Amino acid sequence: MTDSQLYGGIEAGGTKFMCVVGSGPTNIVDEVRVETSQPGPTLERVIQFFRPYCDRSQVSTIGVGSFGPLDLIHNSPSYGFITSTPKPGWRNTDLLGPLVSALGVRVELDTDVNAAALGEWTWGATAGLNSSLYMTIGTGIGGAYLHAANPVQGFHHSEMGHIGLPHDPDSDPFPGSCPFHGACFEGLASGPAIQLRLGRRAEDLPDDHPFWELEAGYIASALASYILILAPMRIVLGGGIMRREFLFPRIRRQVLYLLGDYLPSGSLLESTESYIVAPGLGSHSGAYGAIAMAMKPADKN
Amino acid sequence: MTDSQLYGGIEAGGTKFMCVVGSGPTNIVDEVRVETSQPGPTLERVIQFFRPYCDRSQVSTIGVGSFGPLDLIHNSPSYGFITSTPKPGWRNTDLLGPLVSALGVRVELDTDVNAAALGEWTWGATAGLNSSLYMTIGTGIGGAYLHAANPVQGFHHSEMGHIGLPHDPDSDPFPGSCPFHGACFEGLASGPAIQLRLGRRAEDLPDDHPFWELEAGYIASALASYILILAPMRIVLGGGIMRREFLFPRIRRQVLYLLGDYLPSGSLLESTESYIVAPGLGSHSGAYGAIAMAMKPADKN
Repeated sequence: MTDSQLYGGIEAGGTKFMCVVGSGPTNIVDEVRVETSQPGPTLERVIQFFRPYCDRSQVSTIGVGSFGPLDLIHNSPSYGFITSTPKPGWRNTDLLGPLVSALGVRVELDTDVNAAALGEWTWGATAGLNSSLYMTIGTGIGGAYLHAANPVQGFHHSEMGHIGLPHDPDSDPFPGSCPFHGACFEGLASGPAIQLRLGRRAEDLPDDHPFWELEAGYIASALASYILILAPMRIVLGGGIMRREFLFPRIRRQVLYLLGDYLPSGSLLESTESYIVAPGLGSHSGAYGAIAMAMKPADKN
Repeated sequence: MTDSQLYGGIEAGGTKFMCVVGSGPTNIVDEVRVETSQPGPTLERVIQFFRPYCDRSQVSTIGVGSFGPLDLIHNSPSYGFITSTPKPGWRNTDLLGPLVSALGVRVELDTDVNAAALGEWTWGATAGLNSSLYMTIGTGIGGAYLHAANPVQGFHHSEMGHIGLPHDPDSDPFPGSCPFHGACFEGLASGPAIQLRLGRRAEDLPDDHPFWELEAGYIASALASYILILAPMRIVLGGGIMRREFLFPRIRRQVLYLLGDYLPSGSLLESTESYIVAPGLGSHSGAYGAIAMAMKPADKN
């Protein structure tokens, strides 16, 4: 038995489900990493991890930040489902239903990037900022623009990883890997795009491979669009590919070049070292952000 | 003398300053169109138009929706200035200062697209929607995403007309006309871009010219990015080029194609006729929107 209220957090990703119990980065009392296999066995292991905490009423709310696309429209028949994902076996999978029925607790579901953005805003690199952008660049590419703690979105959550980018087929003939849009940002710059393009995993590519300059250019091109549209006060770049720290100065340089002095002097862009940054929570933005989701009052979600 | 309070509205554009006095689309009591020459004489004629209304205290607030970029940061030394515009004579021009000092009234300044978006939200095609996007496609290209009545923007107003787009130099070798970004959206699809590309004014191009299909494609490409990032509940397309009504069905068709069924079924996109629409206020969105700016309580701006 613990004295203080605990919360569950799930970062549901294409390769793993990171599950944590705690009340913030400095108080994580348990965690488990579940490999993402097929939906049934994956969710069963997740449920096993949380069941004792829920049965003992130590955890009454679980936040879930999941890969997508997700149906988050409350009155939709597929509410809480992962919908048109290209991930084998996961298309049209009910994610919310099995967790709620097996554990009997409140489950707050949002996209993985919305969760990670909230984690960074609550405890990380964008803490308290009025506007911020979190991007994950890895197996997939996604982003969340927050106004204070709230994702800005209209009839659907953002899928900003799928925007089209300038792409010169003469200098880069790769047609892109996205099954929906071909050479969109994700189709040009995600981990699977790199594997399809170069025949080996992004993780195995040496730091001095010439491709990284192209990768930095595509990331910078997308960031320039987000800055022109949203003008966030800070941008956090997370995800597996961004563990290559040498990408950051290249991206910052190319963003400034692409914007071409169009935004006013004195703007935040002038000190790009503190404008385009790594996650303050390292690789835990998503899981801790899922806890932050659970900690939000129910009526605020 | 009038009984009811009146408001001033100025749509400050690259070719004309539309000035109106009234309290909404159904009560416009006076208006004048001032050609945009050099800043001094242009602003002098605008001031002459409003002076009697301000002197008689019939108008105590004027809203201004202006072309840009604008410096809207209150503590900036160039607050209220038009900054790095390519328009000859207008770079680093104080717009707010002369109006305030000559007329002695409150002047609310925002971008032309923010004003037009607010006009459409107050009285037009997006009235009352929780999220909406207004685009102007003409001499310049700009857009405003509103959350209810408020523009969503971070450290700077949106400059979404300048995003990069997929652009195949083999099928379209035009290098773009934007002095800052070359082949950005505005550099590919604005009025000046059309004139530079084809050697004649967009207004003089016949409806059956094959270029219009390319134009619709670039507009659709940009809209697809805005939808993926912002998912607005409705998009209004205004500006001179969008007076060609045949562009709307072509744009709608290409947007659906570009999104590639990625967003969920049941979404607003399924009825594109009511999703991508013409302005409800015709060519008056900006001027009436400037009145709506003036009508907002001062502490709400």
